[in-house]
Amino acid sequence: MDVQPLLVAGAWQAPREPKGQYRAVDPATGEAIGPAYPVCGAADVEAALAAASAAADALADTPPARIAAFLDAYAQAVDDDAGTLVALAHAETALPAETRLAKVELPRTARQLRLAAQAVRDYAWCEPVIDTAAGLRSHYAPLHKPVAVFGPNNFPLAFNAVAGSDFASAIAARNPVIAKAHPSHPATCERLAQLAHRAVLDTGLPAASVQMLYGYDRALGLRLAGDARLGAIGFTGSRAGGMALKAAADAAGIPAYLEMSSINPVFLLPGALAERGAALAEEFFVSCTAGSGQFCTNPGLLVVPDDADGDAFVAAAVARFKAAAPGVLFARGVQAGLEEAVEALQGWGATCLVGGSSAGPGYRFRPTLLQVAARGFLKHPAELQREAFGPASLLVRTRSEDEMLTLIAHLEGNLTGTVYAATDGRDDAAFARIGRALRPRVGRLIANRMPTGVAVSAAMNHGGPWPSTGHPGFTAVGMPAAIRRFAALHCYDHVADALLPPELRDRNPGGVARQVDGRWRTDDLAPGAAA
Amino acid sequence: MDVQPLLVAGAWQAPREPKGQYRAVDPATGEAIGPAYPVCGAADVEAALAAASAAADALADTPPARIAAFLDAYAQAVDDDAGTLVALAHAETALPAETRLAKVELPRTARQLRLAAQAVRDYAWCEPVIDTAAGLRSHYAPLHKPVAVFGPNNFPLAFNAVAGSDFASAIAARNPVIAKAHPSHPATCERLAQLAHRAVLDTGLPAASVQMLYGYDRALGLRLAGDARLGAIGFTGSRAGGMALKAAADAAGIPAYLEMSSINPVFLLPGALAERGAALAEEFFVSCTAGSGQFCTNPGLLVVPDDADGDAFVAAAVARFKAAAPGVLFARGVQAGLEEAVEALQGWGATCLVGGSSAGPGYRFRPTLLQVAARGFLKHPAELQREAFGPASLLVRTRSEDEMLTLIAHLEGNLTGTVYAATDGRDDAAFARIGRALRPRVGRLIANRMPTGVAVSAAMNHGGPWPSTGHPGFTAVGMPAAIRRFAALHCYDHVADALLPPELRDRNPGGVARQVDGRWRTDDLAPGAAA
Repeated sequence: MDVQPLLVAGAWQAPREPKGQYRAVDPATGEAIGPAYPVCGAADVEAALAAASAAADALADTPPARIAAFLDAYAQAVDDDAGTLVALAHAETALPAETRLAKVELPRTARQLRLAAQAVRDYAWCEPVIDTAAGLRSHYAPLHKPVAVFGPNNFPLAFNAVAGSDFASAIAARNPVIAKAHPSHPATCERLAQLAHRAVLDTGLPAASVQMLYGYDRALGLRLAGDARLGAIGFTGSRAGGMALKAAADAAGIPAYLEMSSINPVFLLPGALAERGAALAEEFFVSCTAGSGQFCTNPGLLVVPDDADGDAFVAAAVARFKAAAPGVLFARGVQAGLEEAVEALQGWGATCLVGGSSAGPGYRFRPTLLQVAARGFLKHPAELQREAFGPASLLVRTRSEDEMLTLIAHLEGNLTGTVYAATDGRDDAAFARIGRALRPRVGRLIANRMPTGVAVSAAMNHGGPWPSTGHPGFTAVGMPAAIRRFAALHCYDHVADALLPPELRDRNPGGVARQVDGRWRTDDLAPGAAA
Repeated sequence: MDVQPLLVAGAWQAPREPKGQYRAVDPATGEAIGPAYPVCGAADVEAALAAASAAADALADTPPARIAAFLDAYAQAVDDDAGTLVALAHAETALPAETRLAKVELPRTARQLRLAAQAVRDYAWCEPVIDTAAGLRSHYAPLHKPVAVFGPNNFPLAFNAVAGSDFASAIAARNPVIAKAHPSHPATCERLAQLAHRAVLDTGLPAASVQMLYGYDRALGLRLAGDARLGAIGFTGSRAGGMALKAAADAAGIPAYLEMSSINPVFLLPGALAERGAALAEEFFVSCTAGSGQFCTNPGLLVVPDDADGDAFVAAAVARFKAAAPGVLFARGVQAGLEEAVEALQGWGATCLVGGSSAGPGYRFRPTLLQVAARGFLKHPAELQREAFGPASLLVRTRSEDEMLTLIAHLEGNLTGTVYAATDGRDDAAFARIGRALRPRVGRLIANRMPTGVAVSAAMNHGGPWPSTGHPGFTAVGMPAAIRRFAALHCYDHVADALLPPELRDRNPGGVARQVDGRWRTDDLAPGAAA
């Protein structure tokens, strides 16, 4: 078997125990492309775990300036290699090269790495706290154990296991990463890992700080997730996959940060529909079909009043969906999953208004709208919240604001919740009630814009209540909160200044913001203040 | 059956479905004291869950000033009722009334409630972050679901489920608490719950914000822990109990914050022993036997060089332990557990130097020292790390610093790790190496003092790596980190100012510290900055 090498223990090397091989597929044609990649065996996973564990203390003790230099160097390498990366990602995902990959996702990837570097330099994620009277100093510190990162299919660059936000967060907290390449875009992963590895060597990080394996079977993945040598897991993907990894990790006391499925309910209030129904139909269409609808924050559930304005909105949306070409999905599995979901939603009472079926060549699916009355939805609320990952959305028609509120009471946790209101204030009271009910059920509450588009910002929460993610207090985007997922709280009790980490010492030459005796300060402490 | 009432749904009421009853026992005599308390059935747990769930939104929407007023009023009530509370706790636990309960634990309890009130007033736990360009505002917010708190046997006041740090943290984050009274001190719990309930009514919190049940059986506890209506769990207790609750909670995606067992390794370096061995023996004796050794941070593993100074230290410690009276344990179960643990440690190769057996009247145990050579310890490192909860410690004798380091590599996660060094600098190099190796294995690294005594400070970490707790990044003591365990991250995306929570609005009349566009600020924003 002539397969591509793995990045293990600081070198590109042949798999020790290949269990098979696979090639990427151009989803627009269904044809295999690129070289063969190995399915790893237990010996490869063990080698990666052993190397990462051996490197963990050295990486934790690496000066933050060097970590930041790595993140910046890697970001620059991503920028410099943009042409190749975009071409590879486009070939493997069929995502638009210019508008999406080159203009949005690649710059976002580099920016996230640079924001992580900045967070490393300013120690913001460490939250240094000093109590001079009690002789106590604490901060968030590395786990001293590797983090396993599982990236999703839908962001080949910005959420890639070896380049995305989980990767940047884990490295910023000075933990080695064992990345799993996503099988739908292995060449993109390989290229990114090559850039990361070169930056590791150039900036002098421990060589095993970044490792990457290609696919391995489910049992092996669960064994990795439950290995006590692991410090944490970062996962973005399906609910079934996330739940299985979580169960394995939970049994071993390993924190698993999961971003799973979400249908991102959107509520259109009557005034907004009366005022700008046609524009909303267009906005909804664009959000639901961009990237063939393969977003974590795709608007999968649209709540529309059952009145004349609602009917006009639906008619406009249906016309727009009908006129659109089928969207290319990432893989046959995604296509099959969408077929199943659309069929299941109909089985529970939804009617298909437009689309609803696959198309060729490759893995295409027709932009799809389903519809159900709220009273029908409320008969099977769990089943009708099934995520249909792709260019599809379920319209729920409500006869009153009360029915909207009843529906909200039956919603699972979601990443986002959106409310559209009229600009003239006539919907404001309803917005307040709907928004208040939605608030605890979503991570991000949005006014008057579609949920797709997750800004990279310290104020962003790309998280939400169970089961949209695995923890209500964490986000996959937004430094420093995203970094702190991969940190341990460390306290020093009367430990000598020379043995403290830099940000907890009396002298503070870098001007790190620290909470000292209840006040934020950036200056030096009097020597021996902690004695 | 004439049993004490439960605090459910805002009123003291008879159990709906009592499954039995029990009375407290004076552990110093073994005799039953006080009234009968009910073992609850499923209907009582359901009533508490339903009432807490119904109150959750209202409590989340309660102005922080009122939450703070409740916490302060409760703290004052605890202070005012000190005589009764101390007498009840002393009768039920046999902990010293004056030195421990009245002078240390009760003031600590009131102080924790007041620090929580302060954290509520200054919004420190909320971490407001505003990105004006992106139109995003985020903060940590209530879970909008109840928190179940399970308190331990060993702090009848300061870690009580209805008064301790988990309680204060959950209420500070505006979540209702369902407290489980610890069966070894029900009257203390009842008295505290009465004070809390009165403060709830006096300050106008939703009446079901604080509820308390007495015992229920294991199956019912696990059903509660896995109920999707629950927002989180705070638990302090045994590893077996914590693990079982965690498994139930994990399956439902409920965060469980567990503080479990810890043996708190202490390393005595050669210079320290040569310099002040006799004083260290006294310090160790006091720490190991205070409160009959029933502390989470009891020094349960003492690493002592196998040389003449080490022998002298051990001889002095043995003499001190031998001369001491048996310590009173909290319950027959604690006594039985200690008997089993001491026997098991001997079965794995440790020798009993002093004590090792129970005594009467009541539930007493002789202060106990066991000893094993490091090479013996390393044959069964897992078994010899078994916690012996009570006035007992295992001495491990090492022949070299390398042997200490090997031993550290086999240590499980612990709350604390301590190193004693000479004052003249001769141990400094060894301290650096030992401390560095211990660091990732403990929550708090301590120099030259025993681990018992957990200061209430923002810089305290009363947490540690698995399995000493359930999460490496959280602490049970120290605001605001302890509060943030019970919070959800909420983001607002272009939401109108009037619908934002107070600390995220343009106007900032309270001068809350907020991160605005990357800078900490306490002033107002220009109106409409987020548009």
